[in-house]
Amino acid sequence: MSEKLWGGRFSENTDAAVEAFSSSIDIDKRLYHHDVEGSIAHCRMLAKCEIIGQDEAETLIRGLEQIRVEIESGGFAFLDRLEDIHMHIEHRLAEIVGSTARKLHTGRSRNDQVATDIRLWLRDMTRQLLGGLHHFRKALVDMAESHIGVIMPGYTHLQRAQPILFSHYLMAYYEMFTRDAHRFEDGLKRINILPLGSAALAGTTYPIDRDYVADLLGFIGVSGNSIDAVSDRDFIIEFLGAASICMMHFSRLSEELVLWSSSEFGFVVIPDAFSTGSSIMPQKKNPDVPELVRGKTGRVFGSLVAVLTTMKSLPLAYNRDMQEDKVPLFDAADTLCACVDIYTRMFPALKINAPVMEGAVQTGYMNATDLADYLAAKGMPFREAHGCAGEAVRYAMEKNTELHELDIDELRSFSDLIQEDIFNLLTPRAMIERRCCFGGTSTGNVLEAIKRAHEQLAEDALILIEP
Amino acid sequence: MSEKLWGGRFSENTDAAVEAFSSSIDIDKRLYHHDVEGSIAHCRMLAKCEIIGQDEAETLIRGLEQIRVEIESGGFAFLDRLEDIHMHIEHRLAEIVGSTARKLHTGRSRNDQVATDIRLWLRDMTRQLLGGLHHFRKALVDMAESHIGVIMPGYTHLQRAQPILFSHYLMAYYEMFTRDAHRFEDGLKRINILPLGSAALAGTTYPIDRDYVADLLGFIGVSGNSIDAVSDRDFIIEFLGAASICMMHFSRLSEELVLWSSSEFGFVVIPDAFSTGSSIMPQKKNPDVPELVRGKTGRVFGSLVAVLTTMKSLPLAYNRDMQEDKVPLFDAADTLCACVDIYTRMFPALKINAPVMEGAVQTGYMNATDLADYLAAKGMPFREAHGCAGEAVRYAMEKNTELHELDIDELRSFSDLIQEDIFNLLTPRAMIERRCCFGGTSTGNVLEAIKRAHEQLAEDALILIEP
Amino acid sequence: MSEKLWGGRFSENTDAAVEAFSSSIDIDKRLYHHDVEGSIAHCRMLAKCEIIGQDEAETLIRGLEQIRVEIESGGFAFLDRLEDIHMHIEHRLAEIVGSTARKLHTGRSRNDQVATDIRLWLRDMTRQLLGGLHHFRKALVDMAESHIGVIMPGYTHLQRAQPILFSHYLMAYYEMFTRDAHRFEDGLKRINILPLGSAALAGTTYPIDRDYVADLLGFIGVSGNSIDAVSDRDFIIEFLGAASICMMHFSRLSEELVLWSSSEFGFVVIPDAFSTGSSIMPQKKNPDVPELVRGKTGRVFGSLVAVLTTMKSLPLAYNRDMQEDKVPLFDAADTLCACVDIYTRMFPALKINAPVMEGAVQTGYMNATDLADYLAAKGMPFREAHGCAGEAVRYAMEKNTELHELDIDELRSFSDLIQEDIFNLLTPRAMIERRCCFGGTSTGNVLEAIKRAHEQLAEDALILIEP
Amino acid sequence: MSEKLWGGRFSENTDAAVEAFSSSIDIDKRLYHHDVEGSIAHCRMLAKCEIIGQDEAETLIRGLEQIRVEIESGGFAFLDRLEDIHMHIEHRLAEIVGSTARKLHTGRSRNDQVATDIRLWLRDMTRQLLGGLHHFRKALVDMAESHIGVIMPGYTHLQRAQPILFSHYLMAYYEMFTRDAHRFEDGLKRINILPLGSAALAGTTYPIDRDYVADLLGFIGVSGNSIDAVSDRDFIIEFLGAASICMMHFSRLSEELVLWSSSEFGFVVIPDAFSTGSSIMPQKKNPDVPELVRGKTGRVFGSLVAVLTTMKSLPLAYNRDMQEDKVPLFDAADTLCACVDIYTRMFPALKINAPVMEGAVQTGYMNATDLADYLAAKGMPFREAHGCAGEAVRYAMEKNTELHELDIDELRSFSDLIQEDIFNLLTPRAMIERRCCFGGTSTGNVLEAIKRAHEQLAEDALILIEP
Repeated sequence: MSEKLWGGRFSENTDAAVEAFSSSIDIDKRLYHHDVEGSIAHCRMLAKCEIIGQDEAETLIRGLEQIRVEIESGGFAFLDRLEDIHMHIEHRLAEIVGSTARKLHTGRSRNDQVATDIRLWLRDMTRQLLGGLHHFRKALVDMAESHIGVIMPGYTHLQRAQPILFSHYLMAYYEMFTRDAHRFEDGLKRINILPLGSAALAGTTYPIDRDYVADLLGFIGVSGNSIDAVSDRDFIIEFLGAASICMMHFSRLSEELVLWSSSEFGFVVIPDAFSTGSSIMPQKKNPDVPELVRGKTGRVFGSLVAVLTTMKSLPLAYNRDMQEDKVPLFDAADTLCACVDIYTRMFPALKINAPVMEGAVQTGYMNATDLADYLAAKGMPFREAHGCAGEAVRYAMEKNTELHELDIDELRSFSDLIQEDIFNLLTPRAMIERRCCFGGTSTGNVLEAIKRAHEQLAEDALILIEP
Repeated sequence: MSEKLWGGRFSENTDAAVEAFSSSIDIDKRLYHHDVEGSIAHCRMLAKCEIIGQDEAETLIRGLEQIRVEIESGGFAFLDRLEDIHMHIEHRLAEIVGSTARKLHTGRSRNDQVATDIRLWLRDMTRQLLGGLHHFRKALVDMAESHIGVIMPGYTHLQRAQPILFSHYLMAYYEMFTRDAHRFEDGLKRINILPLGSAALAGTTYPIDRDYVADLLGFIGVSGNSIDAVSDRDFIIEFLGAASICMMHFSRLSEELVLWSSSEFGFVVIPDAFSTGSSIMPQKKNPDVPELVRGKTGRVFGSLVAVLTTMKSLPLAYNRDMQEDKVPLFDAADTLCACVDIYTRMFPALKINAPVMEGAVQTGYMNATDLADYLAAKGMPFREAHGCAGEAVRYAMEKNTELHELDIDELRSFSDLIQEDIFNLLTPRAMIERRCCFGGTSTGNVLEAIKRAHEQLAEDALILIEP
Repeated sequence: MSEKLWGGRFSENTDAAVEAFSSSIDIDKRLYHHDVEGSIAHCRMLAKCEIIGQDEAETLIRGLEQIRVEIESGGFAFLDRLEDIHMHIEHRLAEIVGSTARKLHTGRSRNDQVATDIRLWLRDMTRQLLGGLHHFRKALVDMAESHIGVIMPGYTHLQRAQPILFSHYLMAYYEMFTRDAHRFEDGLKRINILPLGSAALAGTTYPIDRDYVADLLGFIGVSGNSIDAVSDRDFIIEFLGAASICMMHFSRLSEELVLWSSSEFGFVVIPDAFSTGSSIMPQKKNPDVPELVRGKTGRVFGSLVAVLTTMKSLPLAYNRDMQEDKVPLFDAADTLCACVDIYTRMFPALKINAPVMEGAVQTGYMNATDLADYLAAKGMPFREAHGCAGEAVRYAMEKNTELHELDIDELRSFSDLIQEDIFNLLTPRAMIERRCCFGGTSTGNVLEAIKRAHEQLAEDALILIEP
Repeated sequence: MSEKLWGGRFSENTDAAVEAFSSSIDIDKRLYHHDVEGSIAHCRMLAKCEIIGQDEAETLIRGLEQIRVEIESGGFAFLDRLEDIHMHIEHRLAEIVGSTARKLHTGRSRNDQVATDIRLWLRDMTRQLLGGLHHFRKALVDMAESHIGVIMPGYTHLQRAQPILFSHYLMAYYEMFTRDAHRFEDGLKRINILPLGSAALAGTTYPIDRDYVADLLGFIGVSGNSIDAVSDRDFIIEFLGAASICMMHFSRLSEELVLWSSSEFGFVVIPDAFSTGSSIMPQKKNPDVPELVRGKTGRVFGSLVAVLTTMKSLPLAYNRDMQEDKVPLFDAADTLCACVDIYTRMFPALKINAPVMEGAVQTGYMNATDLADYLAAKGMPFREAHGCAGEAVRYAMEKNTELHELDIDELRSFSDLIQEDIFNLLTPRAMIERRCCFGGTSTGNVLEAIKRAHEQLAEDALILIEP
């Protein structure tokens, strides 16, 4: 009989080029741990349900554990001919334990087995990622806390808009990455469901106990429909969607670090350990890490498109096309984890150039809004006040000066409502502290946001210590 | 002063081509209802907080409601010159109530206003979509219930694999669209947050009450960081991600309806009312609705890519690029709603050709698995049993017959374990009923799945009747 | 008989919701001109081949021309019930000329008709786009010519790298948009093929003369396989691919204009006519046009993904899914044309702040490469020279000065090879002029590049005046 | 001094995690051959221009050739610490030839070096792909030639439409893959341009001879603008666009092979050597190769999206983000090549089930169009004839028979124009042969198309034998 699991009705051997083309062992061998874990649980259940003997189960489990050790120690041969990790393990198991090995596949199929493995893998990967994001979110909050006094320009349209606390800016990213974490957690609910027991597509004829397997493997539920269970890859796409949004956030943060480390901005110095130089220009120090992270955004978006495309229009249930889910999934997950990790390392090492940030707040008419608010507070309709402040800006620009450098007479030429108290209002610090509504940039607000973040991080840590 | 909200410092008028290029009024006018709703809530809050007078508030609200009526009755002029729906409404408000109109913008900016409008709109759209999906899921369950006796081939790799209940197949799609619904509900948690009060990016200097506005508008929370609040479009991408998965499901179902209505399959007849003919071939009846739905998958995937691309690498906070979120969002949401609606209409009208489905189960060696299981139950290791059944299939194929048409001696030539009782086991009905583990295709299982679905639909209906 | 073209075998009318769902008239009515044009050519050919009478042909053509006038004058009613533009025109033709109208469809089908219309449309659109790109490329060259003396920093990694001519930078974009133009021209070869005469999919039984129709319509060839001709949408995807690359170029240029108009760079002032202000911050002047263009990149990429997705896995020949090609095609083409147009208007109006650009060249150690080259020219291996210049940079940075501000003794402490002549070499102007190999930034090179560009523009103009 | 090329101004070493994160050696080591080739040409030119000595050049070239041998024999150590293949080779060169190695980098930079390598690689890959496509196109034509008599139903909307020759269907794919080949050839014009000599971004100060390098390396031109030359990745995206269209074609063909090898169609048998079985269902034979190819479409579309996303909004010139071009490019090119190869192997081995195909033509009213044409030829306006044939189809369907099985009286009840000669016209063979206009399915036409294809293949072979 052929080595293949399915050789019985075949009269020709598989073409070697086809074996190489269709083999996925280079990719899916990294599932070995979860494949062994799933098989052990399946095996324990078969024994509990008296479908196989207790001693047979023990033999199988010992064999599986030996294989795991062999793989981890590097002493395991991978061959295209054996297609995938599932076949490799089963084939080796037969070498170790003999014909009992053939009982392991009772009541299951590769279709539900591969779905189980990939869910186990993605559950672990999601938790690892949540752990990584937790560290990075903490790094953001810690940095916000330690830099609470630093003022910088807030931008819209990359034009200086209003002064803000640098810590407020950091906490904006904390919000984004917190949403990311919660999105991954929502996805976990749909990943963490056991498909095993669905067999090829219609369920199994053996009296198996799926809940017991779910308990052993820590799944929170079992799939309700066997056809769906073997043809569902939604959870992969949902993960890739969340990963894409998270990479989009990294691309924004990276863009800003690239801008900020330019000569023109000079807000931040990326330490030498996180930069590279130029092979031709000796003076260069390049923000390689943010650039690479920004560039890797493409790969993660591409992976999302890849799996959506692959799944489009596939009839139920399993189709071989679905083997193509793994390269994009693994690549996107690895890429995102690497980006989270490198940012968590780099962030505390960034040198913030506070004097330059604060200097940038002094110019650019960022107090024009507050002049308008001042006028509005004195009874001028807001739109009129806005127009009046705009005219003052134009006047000052033509004079090549700033609003707070105009004298009181010049200012009063725009409105009689302006009085000496205006000068106190037009300082960056005053502008920041007056934005004290919930969510605004005042120091008090930002300190409270930091406090809430610490509480949320403590709460979110709970999901990370689940079994 | 210029008509523009921001003309004060400008010495030149906007170029007419620029006005046409940058105007979004053709697109965002459909936000008028939510813009008015948000402005009324903002206005009530300003009065409650004594930032404007109660009488001023009433004047503004009357004006806003008049504008809503004007727009709904078609008596409202839209002009490129006025850029967007927010400007149109404010401009008209000034015509109606005079200079008081200018007070409405106190304590807010277009940046937080537009973020509020789009969240209100998407919240309503999500609920409408959930309602539509609820109807369609019910249509699937009802059809499963009314067709409980119908048998068909289950496929993997588009090869006949094992007999299943047609109702089990329908319930697989019920599972998919239920996950879709829950994914949209998860997204709703992140949509339903009030950004208003974040002003341009740093918060406002006015003593506003954001919680009060959130209550008036039915938001479940207020945003915690003003910079994030005006630059966040995650909720749009998350919606488009969920919409893409849902369309992927429709593409699979559509693919099957196209296959099934072919001459070759003949499993289903799409009624004339849902088909079209050919301008040149009089005999043709084309499955246009499933084809169009399958084709529209592309547009929704494209919209997801569009917004991800647009948001990539944007520095904080608001950038004008973000105006480009609306065309893809509106197009994808409209497309998905239309697909849900047309499927809900079409499904109950499908004519299921049960005899053809059942005929297809008789051939194709679909009972080979059960022959293997039979041997395994008699003690043969499963892999060996599988090989043995495979050989029987090959033998039967060469004889151009089916397994259950072989006589007992022929069958026993493959294994002595085979006895007369085998013939009862090899009927499609017996094969179906023996797959009675949770999630399998047996009638009992499927009836229970239908019962659970009715309960879940009742529960999920609760979210639809929220205020 | 039903109004539908294909009603004969149908016993039920189309559901109204289905009509609304499947109607494409809102989208494809813009093909009216090309549909009429194609029909007239088809009609002339039918008469030439004596398939219809000459008088019938004249009647049909008069009718078609009347319809074109009706549509252009706004006096034409569009109805979902009549599906698409082809049906509308045929239906109206029957009203105008009576039963002769029914002869127009002899020897063709909607499948080859729609393929013809869309090719005619895209051929015109491609030529219009080539015309637009021609103007914009000329605007870039003219600007390069008029600003030939302006020096600016060249960047890599957004770090100042080496001084360049601003004109050299502009000519880099000239190269990109020239490649775009040539890519669209290459695509045109595959667009400009006549599919008419392929009928539904198998060809027609009438003795038609396809070459004559191709001549009348200006096609350069006729399709060689009728099945391919009605199922091919490659030319649309190829166009969208070229459009995506072109928009990517605009996104890069826009990114730079946004950066350059920031306070931090200050290299360029976008005139008021091409900017907008803020509704809340009176001092703001936002680079809306570049931002919008950059944002629109998403839509074009999304359109490419949309059509690729729609076409994936479609069996031959025509499927209704393919109706979904038009929304993304039209949207992407319109978007790109609008971007080309607005940039062509905006570019000559940009105010280049040459003193700021030149000031930026004085700092940042941009002459370090030339110091290394100087040492290498004196015999030091380049890598060693590079290291030596790097150390000089580090020394100068610690002293907070520039390389050319060090005195000769300080410089010589890094290498004895340095002599007084070094100071002439370290000026930006000298650095620029020494890069005089083909393609480099020296003034002579750039002037030659401008000359070549004018010649190329003259040559490329020829394609625009083709019939 | 640090091992890094750019260590001079750096006071800290690179963090090891950063080295691992930013290293691309795992990916770009496959460029080694082209890097060596490019360096040798650069070296020869430096000697020719007397920038280095002839003996130095010979030393360098010997060293480079030794490195190539070391890499090809497996005796070369790759280290994250050395970043990329360029650094690895330079570092090893210094070990072999000592300090002369440092002269190799004279007049070039990593920016133009990497651009050169990737162009050389993609030029070779494109030619390899063109060779592969040439074989596959030939396989299609050969199959068309050897199956010229086989009749099958042509489909639109997956409904049987009109009888066609199977060879005509195959030639439709020949057209598609021929367009693909020509698209890759067009792209080659833009790949095959030498960027070397652009240095970092501004050109070089050395008196190099770029045309000489271009000649040595077989480039057809040199880049005209140094900034563009180092920041251009258009040619990669263009390649990925062409690859995506080509994969879309494979997805269509694969879809059809999957359909055709189903029990329901039964048109084709994929030989055992190109199929796999099921681990649980012994009777299964799955069309794995077409499924995998169809599934891989996702990865290629994803790669296109990846590079478009990465390049979006990058300011000029080189940015480190661009390192991310290689993973998607290599993956897509390898995937496409593997698909072309496996299809070229599989196609000749397909077993065409001609009797089943021809049987499928007998039913489904595929002669309805010809009945309409018959009536039209006798003077009935086509639209009326179409309606009349539609009514005949409805009548026959209700009687559960076919049109050609109705008797003459029944047929005449639909129109008096029908006479006995109708029966000859309604056979599939007659229908096919009457479609004899250029591009139609008649045998004569298809034979001519095959002849044209052979000529075209001979002509296209010329590009494959270029140096």
